[in-house]
Amino acid sequence: MLLRTLREEPAEAEVPSHRLLLRAGYIRRAAPGGYTWLPLGKLVLDRITAIVRAEMTAIGGQEVSFPALLPREPYDVSGRWTDYGDDLFTLKDRRGAELLLAPTHEEMFALLVRDMTSSYRDFPLILFQVQTKFRDEARPRAGLLRGREFLMKDAYSFDLSDAGLADSYARHREAYQRIFARLGLSHTIVAAMSGAMGGSASEEFLALADVGEDTFVACTTCDYAANTEAVVTPVPAVAQREHPPLTVHDTPATPTITALVELANEQALDGRTDWSAADTLKNVVVTVHHPGREDSLLVVGVPGDREVDLKRLDAALSPATVTLFDDFAARPDLVRGYLGPQGLALRYLADPRVAPGTAWLTGANQPGKHATSVVAGRDFTPDGTVEAAEVRAGDPCPACGSGELAVRRGIEIGHIFQLGRRYTEAFAVDVLGADGKPVRPTMGSYGVGVSRAVAAVAEQHHDERGLLWPDEVAPADVHVVAAGKDGQLGTAEALSAELVSRGLRVLLDDRQQLSAGVKFTDAELIGVRRIVVVGRRLAEGYAEIRDRRTGERHDVPVTDVVRVMTE
Amino acid sequence: MLLRTLREEPAEAEVPSHRLLLRAGYIRRAAPGGYTWLPLGKLVLDRITAIVRAEMTAIGGQEVSFPALLPREPYDVSGRWTDYGDDLFTLKDRRGAELLLAPTHEEMFALLVRDMTSSYRDFPLILFQVQTKFRDEARPRAGLLRGREFLMKDAYSFDLSDAGLADSYARHREAYQRIFARLGLSHTIVAAMSGAMGGSASEEFLALADVGEDTFVACTTCDYAANTEAVVTPVPAVAQREHPPLTVHDTPATPTITALVELANEQALDGRTDWSAADTLKNVVVTVHHPGREDSLLVVGVPGDREVDLKRLDAALSPATVTLFDDFAARPDLVRGYLGPQGLALRYLADPRVAPGTAWLTGANQPGKHATSVVAGRDFTPDGTVEAAEVRAGDPCPACGSGELAVRRGIEIGHIFQLGRRYTEAFAVDVLGADGKPVRPTMGSYGVGVSRAVAAVAEQHHDERGLLWPDEVAPADVHVVAAGKDGQLGTAEALSAELVSRGLRVLLDDRQQLSAGVKFTDAELIGVRRIVVVGRRLAEGYAEIRDRRTGERHDVPVTDVVRVMTE
Repeated sequence: MLLRTLREEPAEAEVPSHRLLLRAGYIRRAAPGGYTWLPLGKLVLDRITAIVRAEMTAIGGQEVSFPALLPREPYDVSGRWTDYGDDLFTLKDRRGAELLLAPTHEEMFALLVRDMTSSYRDFPLILFQVQTKFRDEARPRAGLLRGREFLMKDAYSFDLSDAGLADSYARHREAYQRIFARLGLSHTIVAAMSGAMGGSASEEFLALADVGEDTFVACTTCDYAANTEAVVTPVPAVAQREHPPLTVHDTPATPTITALVELANEQALDGRTDWSAADTLKNVVVTVHHPGREDSLLVVGVPGDREVDLKRLDAALSPATVTLFDDFAARPDLVRGYLGPQGLALRYLADPRVAPGTAWLTGANQPGKHATSVVAGRDFTPDGTVEAAEVRAGDPCPACGSGELAVRRGIEIGHIFQLGRRYTEAFAVDVLGADGKPVRPTMGSYGVGVSRAVAAVAEQHHDERGLLWPDEVAPADVHVVAAGKDGQLGTAEALSAELVSRGLRVLLDDRQQLSAGVKFTDAELIGVRRIVVVGRRLAEGYAEIRDRRTGERHDVPVTDVVRVMTE
Repeated sequence: MLLRTLREEPAEAEVPSHRLLLRAGYIRRAAPGGYTWLPLGKLVLDRITAIVRAEMTAIGGQEVSFPALLPREPYDVSGRWTDYGDDLFTLKDRRGAELLLAPTHEEMFALLVRDMTSSYRDFPLILFQVQTKFRDEARPRAGLLRGREFLMKDAYSFDLSDAGLADSYARHREAYQRIFARLGLSHTIVAAMSGAMGGSASEEFLALADVGEDTFVACTTCDYAANTEAVVTPVPAVAQREHPPLTVHDTPATPTITALVELANEQALDGRTDWSAADTLKNVVVTVHHPGREDSLLVVGVPGDREVDLKRLDAALSPATVTLFDDFAARPDLVRGYLGPQGLALRYLADPRVAPGTAWLTGANQPGKHATSVVAGRDFTPDGTVEAAEVRAGDPCPACGSGELAVRRGIEIGHIFQLGRRYTEAFAVDVLGADGKPVRPTMGSYGVGVSRAVAAVAEQHHDERGLLWPDEVAPADVHVVAAGKDGQLGTAEALSAELVSRGLRVLLDDRQQLSAGVKFTDAELIGVRRIVVVGRRLAEGYAEIRDRRTGERHDVPVTDVVRVMTE
């Protein structure tokens, strides 16, 4: 077997799964964000693929396979050619025709269903493929966790009614729970944003992991859980009362919230000395990058005790993306550090807490000046609300209201969407309904990151000595080690052959030139649960059976090994 | 099942396999040269993939999987970034780094072996992958036969000696024979050119098919067979004799060989009236396109009774390609129609038949004039020989000399190469030999066109009514048709469930709204060999068993169907 384990920590690896998969010889880097599956890794990948395929077939999914390299046209029709932005790998063929490496295939499945169905009898329909996907990630990282080329199972459901879509969605949700349970992945289902996909309801399956890129919140009281981007801030009930008129104050050298609150209390603005950051309104200027058209400026208002979370803001404005604006020299009308929403000439979106009737201490749009009693709905009216403020541990739960949110991290291993009719409308997909009238099918789309799941399992199942695969995804059922030069190899080979004939998958370490210690270390690194050592006690007729997970070891007669392993 | 058979011939299809795979709902066009595998097609593709994988594992192959999207650098080192020319899909990522969609992976496997092996103990080594490949074909055609995205099994062997390479090559050759036998593909192994791959020995596996793009010759007497490009013309034995001196003749209006021969006989040039086209030397000007550098002109000389075969010339000059030169206006020194090799200022390559001592009737490089007794080695000396003349049925066999060549057509389904050390030298792959000295491994590379094999099988196994799969690759073992509305569906379902429980793969036609006739036609189009019809005679307790291949039909008691099918 092509296997070379590494003693040293690979410099390129940042997270445990990446480090161990490299060290144990499962994968190897071949390109930025592109990994080669070595023989051991391919075995694990194939097992996971088989589980995904089996559970998709069990809910009536039919497997197909689309090209990855596609013409631009359908993605222009849906708008995703531009919406996907730089993440999309595009190229031209020898004739100059524009092509893309498809990130997902909503367009193509909608076209397929348009051309291959005609009647309500053809529905509901679940189609899926297991396919290599390409995405030009800005920052490929953590090995298989965020690559530019990866294996994905993408599925698409087609139903004639919203109830049908809800049912297909529920079926996928259950299938995914079964898949991740079989993979031994402890996970949480969180409410999610649909992003560039379009559509309404959407949930993510997150494998719990400290190294996960996805931050989510979970209520400590009820079962609410949501991707941070999807957390909806409850709109506060605002008591309707008369506010004093807007008053401008001299607040020199207070460009930060901290400095402003300190000065407000020192000077007892409006007679108050209990000013806190939460009473202030922070206004942040960002540049919005719209795919396919010009950038624009936007001001976002959040309570001063919270930062603007650019990931949340990105998600809220998707497919546009944002960066902080800092070219104030070019815009003398924007008074840095003293910005207020009143009389602002730019688009202004406010946090839901900035509800009509709330009053704020905020910038007066003049250097060194702030204003008090700046009332939403009276002194300024936002162009809309936006979920841009950071979500913090301890925030009230938007579902039950009574619980608090805890913040956790996870790896996105699955994502399910109720897309609705965005794509069937774009491609005018119509079929004949039972009543003889045309019906437009409604779609769902569902993805499992198959190669990423390998890393997620490794992330959840390892210890300081190496990997520790759940039985159902392990590269072998038994790892046999021949340790010694007194006939151990012959016995180990015979034993392995016998185990294989009983249907077990066996990894046999028959390397003659290595010490027993090196082989034991490698066995622990590779992480098959059951290890059989044919070693020193062979002379007495004994082999040792080790459990990688519990650490238990016991000697059994060599003649009993097959029985014990097949019990 | 997502299945819609087509009654009409699809306009886009040129060859039977393409037409039938489209009509029977196995594949569907998604992009120029890119096809979607529909559920039925995916089943066949998976079966073929499984056979290929099993036979590769049987010869000790270890499966890995490389990214398809790779950085330019390794392909620059090997020279293939330029050598591959326009066939290579290249692109840039968001940072402007150049990438390619790898046509094959010699470079990456050499690098893998360099980094993951160190000693002679690690050899011999056979590694393979089953992977989607991309190639920017100038003329994608015939559906799966020549696409821009296709599934390929590529394997690479690494040995420390030439004898080892010969052995790995032989193992692959035998594995491929087993694979194609299991697929039911009647094929011929032909000697081939190595082209842009580099290396020495090389053979192609061609599935015999009239629609095949590859022309090959086979000796009617011995077992010689070769790709047309690889046919080596035997050099004639030339009797050494004195030739009269070169004589220029007025031959007005004879720009073609036919006109020239006619006039030569009319005018009894040199006193002869037995001039034939074979006595003339035809000189053809071509533009040579060298990848990565400027075009050049070349004149090719062949006996006048043969055409220049541009595919053979291309292969001989690979990685360069050629086109016919016709801009004679720009080159007044080249007298169109009256060109001779004597005193020519351009590179001149001649057919091996133009051996030293042979005398020719050829152009005199003056309008309306030809010369006789133009002797190779006396009046002109070619810069080399080239295999550019067409190969014709009836040509003498270059192997046995006594037989004649027959010309046949086939589909390339496999290709095996002894690459040698081209890639291990490019990447300085060295390992420690048994004697303690470094050894440079020698490589073989071996490909099976997996998706193309689906089309090749369809091409060889069909009749006018549809496909007719060999059992081992069929999408199902039994096709059950429920025909009738008197309980047939229930019985067919029960029967199918029983067959499935016995391990058979069943396709059940349960479409209620269609007539029996349509279902029978579809069954024949889809091409599963064994068809069970639960139809009119169900009332008497009978079903009909049909054999799609032999056309036999017989009624059996419904209760006997499972027994008959599992016998």
